[in-house]
Amino acid sequence: MAVYTHIGAEDMSEIVREFGLGTLISAKGIAEGVENTNYFVDTSSGRYILTIYEKRVKTDDLPFFHALLDHLAQKGCPVPRTMHDGSGTSLKMWRGKAMAMIEFLPGLSVSRPTTDQALAVGAALGHMHGAALDFPLSRPNAMGLEGWIAMAHQCGTALNEIEPNLQDRVTKECAFLRAHWPKHLPHGIIHADLFPDNVLMTDDSVTGMIDFYFACTDVRAWDVAVTHAAWSFSADGTEYHAPVGNAILAGYRQCFGLSDAEETAFNILARGACLRFLLTRAWDWLNTPADALVTRKDPLAFLNRLDHYADQ
Amino acid sequence: MAVYTHIGAEDMSEIVREFGLGTLISAKGIAEGVENTNYFVDTSSGRYILTIYEKRVKTDDLPFFHALLDHLAQKGCPVPRTMHDGSGTSLKMWRGKAMAMIEFLPGLSVSRPTTDQALAVGAALGHMHGAALDFPLSRPNAMGLEGWIAMAHQCGTALNEIEPNLQDRVTKECAFLRAHWPKHLPHGIIHADLFPDNVLMTDDSVTGMIDFYFACTDVRAWDVAVTHAAWSFSADGTEYHAPVGNAILAGYRQCFGLSDAEETAFNILARGACLRFLLTRAWDWLNTPADALVTRKDPLAFLNRLDHYADQ
Repeated sequence: MAVYTHIGAEDMSEIVREFGLGTLISAKGIAEGVENTNYFVDTSSGRYILTIYEKRVKTDDLPFFHALLDHLAQKGCPVPRTMHDGSGTSLKMWRGKAMAMIEFLPGLSVSRPTTDQALAVGAALGHMHGAALDFPLSRPNAMGLEGWIAMAHQCGTALNEIEPNLQDRVTKECAFLRAHWPKHLPHGIIHADLFPDNVLMTDDSVTGMIDFYFACTDVRAWDVAVTHAAWSFSADGTEYHAPVGNAILAGYRQCFGLSDAEETAFNILARGACLRFLLTRAWDWLNTPADALVTRKDPLAFLNRLDHYADQ
Repeated sequence: MAVYTHIGAEDMSEIVREFGLGTLISAKGIAEGVENTNYFVDTSSGRYILTIYEKRVKTDDLPFFHALLDHLAQKGCPVPRTMHDGSGTSLKMWRGKAMAMIEFLPGLSVSRPTTDQALAVGAALGHMHGAALDFPLSRPNAMGLEGWIAMAHQCGTALNEIEPNLQDRVTKECAFLRAHWPKHLPHGIIHADLFPDNVLMTDDSVTGMIDFYFACTDVRAWDVAVTHAAWSFSADGTEYHAPVGNAILAGYRQCFGLSDAEETAFNILARGACLRFLLTRAWDWLNTPADALVTRKDPLAFLNRLDHYADQ
């Protein structure tokens, strides 16, 4: 939630000129993005988000993310296009950091999604999966089953500082999921982090799917499970909103569809989604000072969600 | 540099509606404003900055600031107008905090002002002083001579933690300024904090004077001295840029003018301006943890400026 890299007016004008975006009208640092610096940039040719990639995003992966955004946008998905300079590149270096100018999309992230909004989000996810079918690049999922099982080991007994007996619960869940994890479901490009924060909406329409920095190639229905777990609960995870959850699935089924095998595996995938976010949040919780710039998200909000799916 | 008060999409829509600004298109927290939360808000009727006033701005002073903005804007000064709701108020309460929707102005803050830009800034300040002549309200300057002499006492020997012998230097300067402070210069409404950060420019034109939260009634030429000290030096205060300093004064003389008494007193006022910012920065420096969200500004950048004026 901060501007880590400060860009003055003179340098900003030059950057805008290099991207061929006309003349600079205004630029303001945005208090979003835990990992990157983002500026809201207005020029005579339009409105853009300038992202300066700070340490946590691997520069090697940026061509994959940019190519994916351009591919999906070209297919009509509501994702931001990347701007390209005269040499054709969308990734420029600025004082040793990679930088991109990305289309600004209108809309806001909802905090209390309605059933109609959830239907639209499920549909947008399905549309995105369809549009990505012929995307030629791939990227492994660093946060798949084995990734978060490793993270559970790294957290170790410290998990019990968050909640008594959490380590035991996590260990048993990891063993259960490893034993029951579906092996033959179709893979494809997935967003892998489609929380309400990463969806812009105007009324009941999805105007933007953003923050593809976890996008990768993995089990497609896993993406639906992540989205379901992210959208269908109260913030603390204690209340399941069944109409919203059902609408996420209905929208997805309409636009892309779920096979019988995917439907059958859905509950296991959703438990995995909860464990994945429980563990990454726990890791951040244990490793982020309470007074840091970054807001710590409560890991237990996903333990509560896990309880819900485990009870089904 | 943070969003202290988070406003969700649904609440933001309601706020926009209450201000009669059409429908909400987009809203993003801005990483600006040490003291307040600011959102960049786009609606079907235009673009605005939504400010939620946090603790450091006294709510009692807000009607003064808002009336001043509206008065100056109405006179053609490039200052943002405040939006008024159906009941006529520009100050609304939201969850116990005062809130205002303020016109968005284009332009950027320059970091290396040119002579032409400095001329425009001096002229804009003069124009503002003229436009404020018939402004009916007044507000005492909490950061006048006696205010920062009191602050020097409060800092005490801790000043020497910033620089050896700084307390002695400050004490002598306070005594000198109290003895020589001009007593009969004309008063008026002053901005009192017209740093480059608080001026928006497009090319050589001033498109916005912002952040009037130190505005008050005091010696008018003091405002010129603050502006001169703020604009005419390298960031660390070691290099005086004479053409820029001369242009600030030339622009002001063209648009408002300085009397002989004001010209004579200018150097003393400039020394006072340096001491004022040296002391408030020192206070913040000594009272802000090094890892806080707020960027600490180096007090010594104004000791260097003080040296420059004291040598004249």
